[in-house]
Amino acid sequence: MSNALQFPTRMLMGPGPSDVHPRVLAAMARPTIGHLDPVFVAMMDEIKDLLRFAFQTKNAMTFPVSGPGSVGMEACFANLLEPGDTAIVCANGVFGGRMKENVERCGAAAVMVTDDWGKPVDPNKAEAAIKANPGAKLLAFVHAETSAGVKSDAAALCGLAANAGMMSVVDAVTSLGGISVAVDNWGADAVYSGTQKCLSCPPGLSPVTFSPRAVDTVKTRKTKVQSWFLDLSLVAAYWAGEGARTYHHTAPVNALFALHEALIMLHEEGLENAWARHAAMHQQLAAGLERFGLTLPVAAPDRLPQLNLVSIPEGIDDAKTRRRLLDEFGLEIGGGLGAFAGKAWRIGLMGQSATRRHVLTCVAALADVLQR
Amino acid sequence: MSNALQFPTRMLMGPGPSDVHPRVLAAMARPTIGHLDPVFVAMMDEIKDLLRFAFQTKNAMTFPVSGPGSVGMEACFANLLEPGDTAIVCANGVFGGRMKENVERCGAAAVMVTDDWGKPVDPNKAEAAIKANPGAKLLAFVHAETSAGVKSDAAALCGLAANAGMMSVVDAVTSLGGISVAVDNWGADAVYSGTQKCLSCPPGLSPVTFSPRAVDTVKTRKTKVQSWFLDLSLVAAYWAGEGARTYHHTAPVNALFALHEALIMLHEEGLENAWARHAAMHQQLAAGLERFGLTLPVAAPDRLPQLNLVSIPEGIDDAKTRRRLLDEFGLEIGGGLGAFAGKAWRIGLMGQSATRRHVLTCVAALADVLQR
Repeated sequence: MSNALQFPTRMLMGPGPSDVHPRVLAAMARPTIGHLDPVFVAMMDEIKDLLRFAFQTKNAMTFPVSGPGSVGMEACFANLLEPGDTAIVCANGVFGGRMKENVERCGAAAVMVTDDWGKPVDPNKAEAAIKANPGAKLLAFVHAETSAGVKSDAAALCGLAANAGMMSVVDAVTSLGGISVAVDNWGADAVYSGTQKCLSCPPGLSPVTFSPRAVDTVKTRKTKVQSWFLDLSLVAAYWAGEGARTYHHTAPVNALFALHEALIMLHEEGLENAWARHAAMHQQLAAGLERFGLTLPVAAPDRLPQLNLVSIPEGIDDAKTRRRLLDEFGLEIGGGLGAFAGKAWRIGLMGQSATRRHVLTCVAALADVLQR
Repeated sequence: MSNALQFPTRMLMGPGPSDVHPRVLAAMARPTIGHLDPVFVAMMDEIKDLLRFAFQTKNAMTFPVSGPGSVGMEACFANLLEPGDTAIVCANGVFGGRMKENVERCGAAAVMVTDDWGKPVDPNKAEAAIKANPGAKLLAFVHAETSAGVKSDAAALCGLAANAGMMSVVDAVTSLGGISVAVDNWGADAVYSGTQKCLSCPPGLSPVTFSPRAVDTVKTRKTKVQSWFLDLSLVAAYWAGEGARTYHHTAPVNALFALHEALIMLHEEGLENAWARHAAMHQQLAAGLERFGLTLPVAAPDRLPQLNLVSIPEGIDDAKTRRRLLDEFGLEIGGGLGAFAGKAWRIGLMGQSATRRHVLTCVAALADVLQR
């Protein structure tokens, strides 16, 4: 059975996963150790510190949830919301819509603030919704909408929520490590991310951070969190330091080896350097694509450097083109979702995939495939 | 920061994770590919087939949940139960108690059937509970109680549930690959497992299988599943074959590389051979421990070959002994939980840790540490 499958080496320039550095792959392949091993517990502490660095926060409650980004999203809503609560959800792409699903499955009501795909969340609309719903518990939005390649103004949106006495929930899945995620400066209350984007780790973990106010909200709930696995009061005890630690689940040891190494690499590079690299590669990619007539539908100031929407030229077959890039060059780029399905590609420049080699290869390969 | 931590090579003989074969570690370190890559999709199909082999089932709905065993448990209850339902839960250790938590967080009532830790679930008590609660939707129990080292009679318990028109939910986290998990022969409706026990894979995934009846139950729910991430109707579409596949979350690609390889190794060995190996190693371990006066508190017919409870002799310091085994021999064994905390060790012989080398090393190291 194993003989049939030939595992390829790709160049990952889709919406995630991104290319993983050999150091991180090697870390992931270390012999598995127990999740109660003193070395493992020491690594957990380092991971928490490194995540605080990446999130630019002092939040004590900062750790990776043992599941992909969607689970991090669910952890935020399931812990902060109770039946009967109201949440204001800003949607300008797939992931805002997923937030609504999460809110409603917690028994809460979602008041939607919608913007077109490809546009950032409009803070004026968010402000109006906050004024119209003074009893809402939180405002939720996506900092970097992976489906639309758009950045929203997290500082402004968190500020609006805080001014109204509401909490803020921020999706930073695609932003963390690629652009600034300034949790403490923003005053954000619950922020979740993923490992397979700008952290350049294999998918499977979701770093989260909760402000003291968010932690208090969880502690003073009237009802139990509907998910045992995601109940912060239990998970936090598992991620507490040695001595205080209580068994909850068995942590994904090797995935955490990888995250630990990827975070060390981010720390070695420095946040500002990583952001500058993403920005520079984005400029080079945009220039290269525009040189042979491709256009980027998102307005320049709203673009995510790490996730570039590119309009598919008239008469070009979307799926066939992507398949040729994969088959002929081992190059993966992403298709469009929702409003952009069949209309735009998504070209990721995330983490280890944000290099000049990636940019030039992608431009050259795309030019080649489109011209033949 | 990375220089401080020295990652050790252990010999894992606790309650999981177990030792992972170099082939599986190497598979896990393959360059990450996209979760929409045709090769990845082909691998998903192979994983489903291999899991059907391991679970001895034809169930179409068989796949690994992207989270540890606890998430598999939650997936079963969250999908099958709705608010107002009743579930009969058999508890003879930690994990039966966790089932109760899950049932209640779904808004359902749990009728408990309790047996002492170290004893199997008593089918007579289960039968009495079924008779007393004819409206209950399901009967849940742990096939292999990791906290107590005890095997329960899954065929009998599933049969009782089926005869009463109830569904059965089976925890096979520690049993799959170590002893027979005969899903179709038992007539079990929802069964979950973990990767880090007898499959000898790093922790982080939870193989599950659902009978057609269980799938129908999910399809005809009156309310939405409270967890978006675990909603089978969405996850199933993600694990559907190429063409039918719908984006849900980003699968943990490298963890699935590892599971794929571990399942291929189980397939190469053959289920019966794997069970026989676990049984033989258990006999050798028990004989070796008894030779120098240690006793196994669980009655012989109820013992799990892959997880051995060993009474801690009078006057011996539990934690200090385990720490010496770890420091002096790199050998991890488990401490007791709940009723057995401080009173028994848990020695795992799971998957790649069920070898003569492990048995002899463990007996010799334990003898050495206890005698000095």
